[in-house]
Amino acid sequence: MCERKTDYAFEMACSNIRYGAGVTKEIGMDLQNMGARNVCLMTDRTLSQLPPVGVVLDSLTKHGVEYKIYEDVRVEPTDKSFKAAIDFAKQGHFDVYVAVGGGSVIDTCKAANLYASHPEAEFLDFVNAPIGKGKPITASLKPLIAVPTTAGTGSETTGVAIFDFENLKAKTGIANRALKPTLGMVDPLHTLHMPSRVAANSGFDVLCHALESFTALPYNLRSPCPSNPINRPAYQGSNPISDVWARHALKIVAKYLKRAVRDAGDVEARSSMHLASVFAGIGFGNAGVHLCHGMSYPIAGNVKTHRARGYNVEHPIVPHGLSVVLTSPAVFAFTANMCPERHLEAAQILGTDVSNIKKDDAGRVLADTLRSILYDLEVEDGLFAIGYTKEDIPSLVKGTIPQERVTKLSPRAHTEEDLTALFAASMKLY
Amino acid sequence: MCERKTDYAFEMACSNIRYGAGVTKEIGMDLQNMGARNVCLMTDRTLSQLPPVGVVLDSLTKHGVEYKIYEDVRVEPTDKSFKAAIDFAKQGHFDVYVAVGGGSVIDTCKAANLYASHPEAEFLDFVNAPIGKGKPITASLKPLIAVPTTAGTGSETTGVAIFDFENLKAKTGIANRALKPTLGMVDPLHTLHMPSRVAANSGFDVLCHALESFTALPYNLRSPCPSNPINRPAYQGSNPISDVWARHALKIVAKYLKRAVRDAGDVEARSSMHLASVFAGIGFGNAGVHLCHGMSYPIAGNVKTHRARGYNVEHPIVPHGLSVVLTSPAVFAFTANMCPERHLEAAQILGTDVSNIKKDDAGRVLADTLRSILYDLEVEDGLFAIGYTKEDIPSLVKGTIPQERVTKLSPRAHTEEDLTALFAASMKLY
Repeated sequence: MCERKTDYAFEMACSNIRYGAGVTKEIGMDLQNMGARNVCLMTDRTLSQLPPVGVVLDSLTKHGVEYKIYEDVRVEPTDKSFKAAIDFAKQGHFDVYVAVGGGSVIDTCKAANLYASHPEAEFLDFVNAPIGKGKPITASLKPLIAVPTTAGTGSETTGVAIFDFENLKAKTGIANRALKPTLGMVDPLHTLHMPSRVAANSGFDVLCHALESFTALPYNLRSPCPSNPINRPAYQGSNPISDVWARHALKIVAKYLKRAVRDAGDVEARSSMHLASVFAGIGFGNAGVHLCHGMSYPIAGNVKTHRARGYNVEHPIVPHGLSVVLTSPAVFAFTANMCPERHLEAAQILGTDVSNIKKDDAGRVLADTLRSILYDLEVEDGLFAIGYTKEDIPSLVKGTIPQERVTKLSPRAHTEEDLTALFAASMKLY
Repeated sequence: MCERKTDYAFEMACSNIRYGAGVTKEIGMDLQNMGARNVCLMTDRTLSQLPPVGVVLDSLTKHGVEYKIYEDVRVEPTDKSFKAAIDFAKQGHFDVYVAVGGGSVIDTCKAANLYASHPEAEFLDFVNAPIGKGKPITASLKPLIAVPTTAGTGSETTGVAIFDFENLKAKTGIANRALKPTLGMVDPLHTLHMPSRVAANSGFDVLCHALESFTALPYNLRSPCPSNPINRPAYQGSNPISDVWARHALKIVAKYLKRAVRDAGDVEARSSMHLASVFAGIGFGNAGVHLCHGMSYPIAGNVKTHRARGYNVEHPIVPHGLSVVLTSPAVFAFTANMCPERHLEAAQILGTDVSNIKKDDAGRVLADTLRSILYDLEVEDGLFAIGYTKEDIPSLVKGTIPQERVTKLSPRAHTEEDLTALFAASMKLY
């Protein structure tokens, strides 16, 4: 089959997406149409008091759909919080899952559905290798409707669920097309409830999904070529379809991110960013992400005392989008030489005049463009500002090594020394 | 639910798409992975002698997959040819379907799978209203892998199957998300077997899919708003996701269509057009098409003696793409006033300098752009050149009236007099 060493094909998969202001009001009818008799509704304690969950509950009640609610999802979930949700799902014998929240809620719900459908499985069975066993998913999962309330994760479109593996102090995840939600119900009115910093950080996640998938190793340079199509990974490298999504998401970020952060009532900006998160999600869900995301997992996992502005949680966290974007200037300065045209095109879409820029300067120019956006949006000045020092770099590097699933999609090969230099260059940004 | 009269939401659905040169060689492994024991392979008599089918047969044999082959698909299928394929499917009790061919083959295979899964149904039950009953599809269909060999139909991405209803002398179809193929396996090497006129006509189908979905009535102006989401039609009007696909497909058509027609060996051009057909298919599969397609059905259905150049068939036909594109200059001149910016943008993407064009001239400019492309590609000079006269216009109009499923997506409302004028204006192009 594969006379060539590198892959010669890519596959595009994504969830069905329904978009409209007020669309969540329909969810009770959808569940009725699906014949749902026992729905698991997952959310978190903050959201459970807010309109996005209220609208869903009203619709379920109105259409006589029976449900149980689980509101103990942890913001930035861990293996422990995943397991608690899985236990709830196993005991409930649910026939449909509904996740109302950001990436934390949707990812937790995917894991709960997966393990409840495979009651015999050990937790590590489906976790990505080399941390887990990365086993194939054989049972059919129950339908899952994802209702995203942040504009960042794209989790409503992907087969990925991410968590902090506490023993390792690093994030890892489960990635399999079988985890894709049946339907992503994207209601832009929900994003009007995001605090400003949540809008900023989830917007940075969109930005990095788009930039990383656009610059990822092309699918036909990824190796090895899988010996059976079932082994083609979810993250396959950049390809002509993911490029369309990435470019389009970048254009929306360039136009609307600042407005969405500054004014929670700017419906046009916030709903545009919501669609951008879908677009970037479909792109990276097929192409993958690389160094910003790979390095973000230990940045989030090793958090000491950082209290994220604008987040209503009782534990120290580095919000996902923040942990991703802080290394982005250093990362794209590092990767630019492998595909300078794409780095320049990204800088141009983000608003920089690149007409007289040489290819050799592509990395510097994109890095400067990103620094300028972060400065304008009052982002903390690098890893130092969120509590890290140079002494932490070895453990940050150590936590990045197991993230091979994503880091191997970097267009530029890298050593531990390179990672060390990238973390060092991200200590201070301005 | 729907306080508003017009729809407030749209849904994006599409098949999984796998793309790569040589990717069909894998199909035996995919079928093995799916546990297929009794595969129905559908194709037509021309293709059955060509490499695209040969590669599939080799792969099935190599992986020990049992199959039966049906090669009696009619190019431009009819209700009669659909029924013959349905009978074959019912008798075969197949567990997976594989369609290798253009839109005719893929659409026939969708219908065979549908009615074999609903053995009690009458043929008209699922045909679009008002010609058929447009009943909902309740049974689960068997998996269907579509392997397109032309670069036009986009049928590998959509839930639509089109046929000539011989009594009515007009095309109609079945449109339901349940018909979507499980996987579209897009192998650009297959398009190297297309004769030049097939490349041209299928390329015109891509062009019109993109132009019509880009200019279709916006989803949030379509009415009525469905009272239940299950009643939201497959064709929902233009929306921010279909716009991305339509614009991108137009760009590829502008760059590669002429090259793909002129030189069958131009792998870059032919494989780019193959991807463009996927992109346009995802776009129109969600947004819909309008007047060019609605008017094309009687143009094809009333064919008298026209023998299409480059087609190896024994009956008179007007190839689908040709029947669609011949009215396009008149149609877009007619619709332009409703969204002149989009008509100008389309003309610009197709290569016309629109910097000094007034909005009032948008229709004329796009029409001239299209006429110029058709002239360069040596397309027959209008309906007259394929055997129609002014005396035929009343029956062409009569055949368009039942195509309300698509014509209602025209951005501009129209009367029978308007349709008469559009056919008259399409009699001669140059």
